[in-house]
Amino acid sequence: MPQCGITLEKRGLVETSQHPIAPATGRLGVLFVGLGAVASTVIAGVELIKRGLAEPVGSLAQMGTIRLGKRTEDRAPLIPDFVPLADLDQLVFGAWDPISDTAYEAAIRCGVLDRYTHIEPIAAALKEIEPMPAVFDQQYVRRLSGTNVKPGAGKRELAEALRDDIRNFKAANDCDRMVVILCASTEVFIEPGPAHQSLEAFEAALDANDEAVPPSMLYAYAALKEGVAFINGAPSLTTDVPAMTELAHTAGVPLSGKDFKTGQTLVKTVLAPMLKARMLGLAGWYSTNILGNRDGEVLDDPDSFRTKEKAKLGVLEHILQPSLYPELYGDFHHKVRINYYPPRGDNKEGWDNIDIFGWLGYPMQIKVNFLCRDSILAAPLVLDLVLFTDLAQRAGLTGTQEWLSLYFKSPQHAPDSYPEHDLFIQQTKLKNTLRWLMGEEQITHLEMENED
Amino acid sequence: MPQCGITLEKRGLVETSQHPIAPATGRLGVLFVGLGAVASTVIAGVELIKRGLAEPVGSLAQMGTIRLGKRTEDRAPLIPDFVPLADLDQLVFGAWDPISDTAYEAAIRCGVLDRYTHIEPIAAALKEIEPMPAVFDQQYVRRLSGTNVKPGAGKRELAEALRDDIRNFKAANDCDRMVVILCASTEVFIEPGPAHQSLEAFEAALDANDEAVPPSMLYAYAALKEGVAFINGAPSLTTDVPAMTELAHTAGVPLSGKDFKTGQTLVKTVLAPMLKARMLGLAGWYSTNILGNRDGEVLDDPDSFRTKEKAKLGVLEHILQPSLYPELYGDFHHKVRINYYPPRGDNKEGWDNIDIFGWLGYPMQIKVNFLCRDSILAAPLVLDLVLFTDLAQRAGLTGTQEWLSLYFKSPQHAPDSYPEHDLFIQQTKLKNTLRWLMGEEQITHLEMENED
Amino acid sequence: MPQCGITLEKRGLVETSQHPIAPATGRLGVLFVGLGAVASTVIAGVELIKRGLAEPVGSLAQMGTIRLGKRTEDRAPLIPDFVPLADLDQLVFGAWDPISDTAYEAAIRCGVLDRYTHIEPIAAALKEIEPMPAVFDQQYVRRLSGTNVKPGAGKRELAEALRDDIRNFKAANDCDRMVVILCASTEVFIEPGPAHQSLEAFEAALDANDEAVPPSMLYAYAALKEGVAFINGAPSLTTDVPAMTELAHTAGVPLSGKDFKTGQTLVKTVLAPMLKARMLGLAGWYSTNILGNRDGEVLDDPDSFRTKEKAKLGVLEHILQPSLYPELYGDFHHKVRINYYPPRGDNKEGWDNIDIFGWLGYPMQIKVNFLCRDSILAAPLVLDLVLFTDLAQRAGLTGTQEWLSLYFKSPQHAPDSYPEHDLFIQQTKLKNTLRWLMGEEQITHLEMENED
Amino acid sequence: MPQCGITLEKRGLVETSQHPIAPATGRLGVLFVGLGAVASTVIAGVELIKRGLAEPVGSLAQMGTIRLGKRTEDRAPLIPDFVPLADLDQLVFGAWDPISDTAYEAAIRCGVLDRYTHIEPIAAALKEIEPMPAVFDQQYVRRLSGTNVKPGAGKRELAEALRDDIRNFKAANDCDRMVVILCASTEVFIEPGPAHQSLEAFEAALDANDEAVPPSMLYAYAALKEGVAFINGAPSLTTDVPAMTELAHTAGVPLSGKDFKTGQTLVKTVLAPMLKARMLGLAGWYSTNILGNRDGEVLDDPDSFRTKEKAKLGVLEHILQPSLYPELYGDFHHKVRINYYPPRGDNKEGWDNIDIFGWLGYPMQIKVNFLCRDSILAAPLVLDLVLFTDLAQRAGLTGTQEWLSLYFKSPQHAPDSYPEHDLFIQQTKLKNTLRWLMGEEQITHLEMENED
Repeated sequence: MPQCGITLEKRGLVETSQHPIAPATGRLGVLFVGLGAVASTVIAGVELIKRGLAEPVGSLAQMGTIRLGKRTEDRAPLIPDFVPLADLDQLVFGAWDPISDTAYEAAIRCGVLDRYTHIEPIAAALKEIEPMPAVFDQQYVRRLSGTNVKPGAGKRELAEALRDDIRNFKAANDCDRMVVILCASTEVFIEPGPAHQSLEAFEAALDANDEAVPPSMLYAYAALKEGVAFINGAPSLTTDVPAMTELAHTAGVPLSGKDFKTGQTLVKTVLAPMLKARMLGLAGWYSTNILGNRDGEVLDDPDSFRTKEKAKLGVLEHILQPSLYPELYGDFHHKVRINYYPPRGDNKEGWDNIDIFGWLGYPMQIKVNFLCRDSILAAPLVLDLVLFTDLAQRAGLTGTQEWLSLYFKSPQHAPDSYPEHDLFIQQTKLKNTLRWLMGEEQITHLEMENED
Repeated sequence: MPQCGITLEKRGLVETSQHPIAPATGRLGVLFVGLGAVASTVIAGVELIKRGLAEPVGSLAQMGTIRLGKRTEDRAPLIPDFVPLADLDQLVFGAWDPISDTAYEAAIRCGVLDRYTHIEPIAAALKEIEPMPAVFDQQYVRRLSGTNVKPGAGKRELAEALRDDIRNFKAANDCDRMVVILCASTEVFIEPGPAHQSLEAFEAALDANDEAVPPSMLYAYAALKEGVAFINGAPSLTTDVPAMTELAHTAGVPLSGKDFKTGQTLVKTVLAPMLKARMLGLAGWYSTNILGNRDGEVLDDPDSFRTKEKAKLGVLEHILQPSLYPELYGDFHHKVRINYYPPRGDNKEGWDNIDIFGWLGYPMQIKVNFLCRDSILAAPLVLDLVLFTDLAQRAGLTGTQEWLSLYFKSPQHAPDSYPEHDLFIQQTKLKNTLRWLMGEEQITHLEMENED
Repeated sequence: MPQCGITLEKRGLVETSQHPIAPATGRLGVLFVGLGAVASTVIAGVELIKRGLAEPVGSLAQMGTIRLGKRTEDRAPLIPDFVPLADLDQLVFGAWDPISDTAYEAAIRCGVLDRYTHIEPIAAALKEIEPMPAVFDQQYVRRLSGTNVKPGAGKRELAEALRDDIRNFKAANDCDRMVVILCASTEVFIEPGPAHQSLEAFEAALDANDEAVPPSMLYAYAALKEGVAFINGAPSLTTDVPAMTELAHTAGVPLSGKDFKTGQTLVKTVLAPMLKARMLGLAGWYSTNILGNRDGEVLDDPDSFRTKEKAKLGVLEHILQPSLYPELYGDFHHKVRINYYPPRGDNKEGWDNIDIFGWLGYPMQIKVNFLCRDSILAAPLVLDLVLFTDLAQRAGLTGTQEWLSLYFKSPQHAPDSYPEHDLFIQQTKLKNTLRWLMGEEQITHLEMENED
Repeated sequence: MPQCGITLEKRGLVETSQHPIAPATGRLGVLFVGLGAVASTVIAGVELIKRGLAEPVGSLAQMGTIRLGKRTEDRAPLIPDFVPLADLDQLVFGAWDPISDTAYEAAIRCGVLDRYTHIEPIAAALKEIEPMPAVFDQQYVRRLSGTNVKPGAGKRELAEALRDDIRNFKAANDCDRMVVILCASTEVFIEPGPAHQSLEAFEAALDANDEAVPPSMLYAYAALKEGVAFINGAPSLTTDVPAMTELAHTAGVPLSGKDFKTGQTLVKTVLAPMLKARMLGLAGWYSTNILGNRDGEVLDDPDSFRTKEKAKLGVLEHILQPSLYPELYGDFHHKVRINYYPPRGDNKEGWDNIDIFGWLGYPMQIKVNFLCRDSILAAPLVLDLVLFTDLAQRAGLTGTQEWLSLYFKSPQHAPDSYPEHDLFIQQTKLKNTLRWLMGEEQITHLEMENED
């Protein structure tokens, strides 16, 4: 990556690391696509944490440690002490949303946070964040509507308006670097087509107002064109196409996605590796979900659900490798159901029934009931992705960031490879990448020091 | 390990491996301490598998694969094709039990296997296996009694009788090598004491009929003295004392234990690493178990339960590292309950309630209900441990086998180290050990091939 | 019911009862529509029970008691000792099915019963029961097909063929009385229409081969025309139309339905009354079901599912009376999902999540996981319905039998009334009806004997 | 009850009812023994409801209806419109507690209610309620301690002090009538002994400071001696002895208990009747509970737990009648476990595993997970019991009130009878008693109007 090398040198390298990383100086602008439950929970959390009123629980980038060297060396620094990350004080938030609620109003409306303890004490900071008018089109998200919407039907024109927003935000807030992160509702299912195969085809589609270009792609395009890293937290197609990875490489910025791995899939990517570690067969896996927030409402539309279902179904097949284990995993029934169920609000609930078989084929069952909170699980992922993406940006890592697979339900991967879904391989990947960046040796867990 | 090298050379080394491993020629004798549900399920299974009537589901040593080289090389041989293991046809089974039922009678009585499909077709083979009189003492296992018991109250005398049994079995069955594996009921809790601190102290205790020496230790002692590897599948103290590791090293044989990791703890050692991978806090973990077999009946005795509880409770603390993460794991409530509940029979059931907290401290819950079968889960572990222990024996690996931690609730470890409970680290350890034995490179999951 | 009185006198009345009931002499023919899992389980069970090889667990008519008189009288005879029911020895079984398997083959194929214990010992009896060719039309049950089907497309002609079957069976088996019970797959949803409003309209539709007349109605029509009681165990429309109740009254025979109340709905009709008894509000009830038998396969067709869904959804509204309790039950979300999931086989599983609210509106949750066996739950209901319907027949109770509501998911009811779903009111209804039939006083549970 | 008749006439009878009931004029004093989570939740709730800020969800006496006459009459008035109950405006609250927190402080400390919505708006009213010094003795409740305690070790002296409190409260608050209700922690298990067999023996024990007299009995004695109705909401022995029923009859006041039926037992008394209604056998019922409030802490003491366990275990046996159904209910394993588990706070959670068997003995399982809130479930029971007990008082019903069994885990009953645990019989009993009081006919659910 010689083109990055030059940029890095200009910024002044972090001397102690093997791999050159620019220091995290100045302000880091964070723009949310969608100022709903997730974004408002992230923003409120960061404000509370900065004031010492809460802990960044769930954030590896804030609370994680990393073991270095041999087991007996007893070295395990905090990750933020090991790699040069931006401080929370350096973050500046902005957002787009078709609904004009401020972060304060959104936080109250979404019902995720306790008003007395976690909203009112930082009300002033939250009220300052007013969403910019969004690019929104009901054709792609049918169950929503909004008034805080950019005028103009031309997709090229809308993309340029988003680029202006990014430039203006950066200047107005005196940001050194920016990250755009999509936390918006799931769009209807779009089959990857010719318009997505190259940057050139994509830009032609943009000019032609092609319906293969949903709003989310306009955000991604705008960010990358501005040299700003982009993260896709939704299951929408958005960045999962050659045109976008091409643009990311051209622009020299990192890209990652898609779909935050929060509740049921998080558990799935842990239990499936367990089955495989023990060679327990799988006869069926029935997953049902009930959730009552805006996300659930959107997914009640079969076309949006189809997008989500695709993201959720691939997981088992990639982990279990039926081609290697036909007797164990060659014929399992995997069903995923999502139900919009208003009594739950933002508290998502999953119920998994897993039919396994063991020795001589005898059946057994595992049932998992996960009573979780959607935005509470997503918020620290957003923070980590923002901080690690900014690190990647400063370390000159461009294009798809496979080492951030840990955070995604459907991780983007190199074209000649496959997505890594196993949470523990994802974790090893992330930590060994950090070690590699800082010139530390890889961990293998072989403990044969005393043997030879 | 020069002393092993000589032995290995004598037997003729496996040429293709980096590490010298004697070939798996001749018969491998397997002696079970306890011919109950687990042992009869193992034996029946092996007989069925040999006849093509069932699959060795759950056995990594039979069905597992191992990835070699780079992700793109696409090399993943079956483990039994990669390392030189004994074939099932080479196994010869024997057992001790205080109840004189044959393997056939035990299989019927325990109700684990379907009589029509999995017992009658191999009845003849099962009927041949009659247990040798056991060393049994109700002081250590209060809820059981038996008549097929060795006479003589002297512990030294009993140990010698067991050594005779081993020698006789080996000769009578023309075995090349032997493994003894303990699949017996949990003994009452015994605090490690002076009698366990060295081989010398232990042998003195043996001569003195010290009550610090329970029957299970007599089996372990007898095996090791005969140069036979010993595996402890129960939570009893047995081999978890310096005297036994000393003896294993002196005798040049592998040793491993303790307590097969089957149901609830298996799941625990997967979900706890998930929490840590995601920096989700833990407020409490309540585990309850209902089981109705002989194991459950024995654990209904508070003193036997105490032994089991100790084995089960340590798991979380070691995985979660409260000293590294005081805000997340410094103050969780961990309760483990086991209930003898006859309606379940051999079908053990666990219910776990896990109280976690995320971003800003918000609480969430995971509940896991595992409807499992005790012996069905344990049987393939027994087979793997026998085959891998025999491999270790032929590879000259003596003393504690940390790389077999995957199979134990309370893995034995090097004195200067700690037990590894995380299932995925255990798996990496096992597989990287196999790679190391065969001269293949370690896997790190860093995918930065294209980067530098 | 003067017309019945005459019939009864002819047969010789049971003297000791207030209400005239003909004695249960001679053989009672039982014809199943559908010789699948349910029917074969009933038949096998009766054969085993007759031989003393099993207990009629689940059958109120066989094992139930009934309290008579005051609490202090301590009178609680067995129901079969209290009312004159047919003996199991008097039952003769026959069936129609589009698949030509005998009851023996069906029992093996369905996998409900243990072959060694519950099929082979009565193999001869089961092999004797060969199904008569069925009236079958894939237009109404899309996921099935069969070859043991009556020729002839004319609906009138097919109905007559069924009447012949009934007459022939009765003569060939020397039956005194007959009952026909539908245990067949769910038909696609049919809206009640003009063809169902009167017997005349129905017979015209029959002649016109109207598609408003599905096969199940031909069976019901044939039975009633032959003066034989008919029971509808499926959720299909079948007998839930004025034409059929008219015919039942004209023919002077009892009629009941529909849809056996087995798993999830059984529990629902107990927990909903609990909520009401305690004035606990309901915010939502999410019910999901996984099942893998023929029933599940048929319900995978959305049109068949719609029929089932209707039967399942009404339950809560009738029990909770939202019009009386608008604040508590005026706005709950009730979702019912059924998933065809082959790993389960005949073992149906339900998971219910119930969101309730209490004092001041605080939310709570109840979750019920029912691991049940479809045919095992249905079989005793079939036996009870056959025996009680025969009793009704002999007691001259014609038309809809509301007192048998206990057995149905969607109980048929008087036109001016509503279905009774509350299991405990249903039970009271059944028992007080038996008391009334036998001239015993009603039970009210008022215990104010000592007060006035 | 001639002695009551006279009293009633003096007060002026409610003319329209068959049974004479004095009108609910004036103020009704309610004294809580224990001003903890339950009492503060009741008081706060009543204050909120009076102001229209919340609904009395869970209260039959406030929100219930009662069906009158035939099904077709469509008469179902609200219970408070049907029977003459005190209005919420007429209630005046007081309490004793060994901790001197006001109701406001207790409500905040217990964490049951949302501070912003349900505490602050009525802070003034809650702050006014300061507990009187309690009779407290750590010998009976080991895990608690308190400073707001009455001096004086003499039990007679303490009882007299409580009587003074009652008289003073009544006078100070100008109450027409009073009710005392025990909502205190469970005392250690006390075997009923000679001291409890008659009023005379009890008073002698009082004078002798006999340890058979725990504090809770002093409260009951004081209330009854003052002619004030007493309700026992705890599982402690308290009123379940002949001495107390004798005193209640002598004093002419109603008495009821014991142990509010809230979470797991509520569900149990509904599912057990379901099994019996369907003649499904029971092999085992395993109930475990986790709770983290003061109640849980107290029950962590084995002696207090024993008291609770007794109250919980009897339920199944009484409902299932093993003597009538030996094959179905003659041999089930019933285990009840309670675990103090602080992460839960006041949110109690039950997990029940129910092993049932059906047709031919085939096993099935029902699992119930109840995530409930202890005080939210208990509060409306307290309100109902207060209002119905006051009604009983005015209707001249003295001694044990079996018709209030609906509210208790261990309902007090007539000496020659047995406790009624079935929730639906309890409900019928309560409603038919109300009908009887008001001269309405009993409901039997026989619908044979059209038959004869």
